[in-house]
Amino acid sequence: MTDIIATVDVILLTLKEGCLRVALLKRDREPYANVLALPGGYIHPDGDADTEAAAERVLREKTGIVSPYLEQLATFSGRGRDPRGWSLSICYYALVPPELIESVGRPDLSLHPVDTLRGLPFDHARIIAAAVDRVKNKSSYSSLPVYLCGDAFTLPQLQAVYEILLGEPINKVSFRRKIEEFDILEPIQGVLATGGAHRPAQLYRLKKQYRKCLSVSDRGL
Amino acid sequence: MTDIIATVDVILLTLKEGCLRVALLKRDREPYANVLALPGGYIHPDGDADTEAAAERVLREKTGIVSPYLEQLATFSGRGRDPRGWSLSICYYALVPPELIESVGRPDLSLHPVDTLRGLPFDHARIIAAAVDRVKNKSSYSSLPVYLCGDAFTLPQLQAVYEILLGEPINKVSFRRKIEEFDILEPIQGVLATGGAHRPAQLYRLKKQYRKCLSVSDRGL
Repeated sequence: MTDIIATVDVILLTLKEGCLRVALLKRDREPYANVLALPGGYIHPDGDADTEAAAERVLREKTGIVSPYLEQLATFSGRGRDPRGWSLSICYYALVPPELIESVGRPDLSLHPVDTLRGLPFDHARIIAAAVDRVKNKSSYSSLPVYLCGDAFTLPQLQAVYEILLGEPINKVSFRRKIEEFDILEPIQGVLATGGAHRPAQLYRLKKQYRKCLSVSDRGL
Repeated sequence: MTDIIATVDVILLTLKEGCLRVALLKRDREPYANVLALPGGYIHPDGDADTEAAAERVLREKTGIVSPYLEQLATFSGRGRDPRGWSLSICYYALVPPELIESVGRPDLSLHPVDTLRGLPFDHARIIAAAVDRVKNKSSYSSLPVYLCGDAFTLPQLQAVYEILLGEPINKVSFRRKIEEFDILEPIQGVLATGGAHRPAQLYRLKKQYRKCLSVSDRGL
């Protein structure tokens, strides 16, 4: 029990320019110094209440970001994944709007399309692939994609986010019915989105009780 | 990193007398000596390739059981769950036919309905509840329940297993269509099940490639 390296890693995903992207950070120490990697770090049993608290702390310390939603993905482990020795990493993923990542102003934190990642250290490529799979799958029956939107958004904007994640167009009527079933949104009174060639559209925001918790459907979209 | 207790626990589930049950083992040492608990143990970095291998080894050593299917459930962690100190347990669940558990002949291993568990040590009640949730949820869109059946079974027997897990009757026609879509079964040539007031029914078994791997559907049953 003393020879195991116990860490947490965070897969921070966002949608920018129509493409799902992961936030990577230049490592500041060996192994793999200066290589882009997932934000991660050791668990601190003295301070962290549990691994989720460790992931929140690591994300906050290394990127300045506090994500409203953070979910355990899985634990990756073994002898070969870290040159320092037998290790396990409890991995958490988060979805955030790109503005949140940009607002912290960390030049060493950058966004990379999940489909064209190269040269990642450890087993981070496998971890990111697992997170992307989970997000795509969970998006088909839950309100998860809403966390990629900012504080205020229109229904067409939200539908476009779902369509990118699911990789296919969605019928507008059934999409609206599903969003109604989730019962997660409230209109922002007196505010309309303007812009483009379209009519002003109603802006929505997440109901308070869903800012940290998903709504899940029995059936897919 | 040296102060963390790293263990694996296995939630071994089976179906007996119409009821989902978990296999519990009397603990042979402190803490909680002689109390019924999940089979679990320390990770051995010297011998275990990863946490899944650790779970397989612990299950084999403590119960004599080798489960064809073992899936990572989640990692449970924190300061309060184990009186020995800050701990994390990577938990794996398995579904097996009751005959497999009975065949190993371990009197200290017993089956308990998941709905009426009491007095479990550590956070094992929470871990088992999470495993049961996962199994019920995953049963609604995958071939997972088949692992609860023995080597040979009829379609009505398999349907009854799904109905117990899903907690509701399933239409026979749509059930058969879904099983066909999964494409996991092959008829056992020349063998029919007899017994009861029914006509002899065709016996099926899992195709070889699905004995360790699920078939998953885009849509629920």
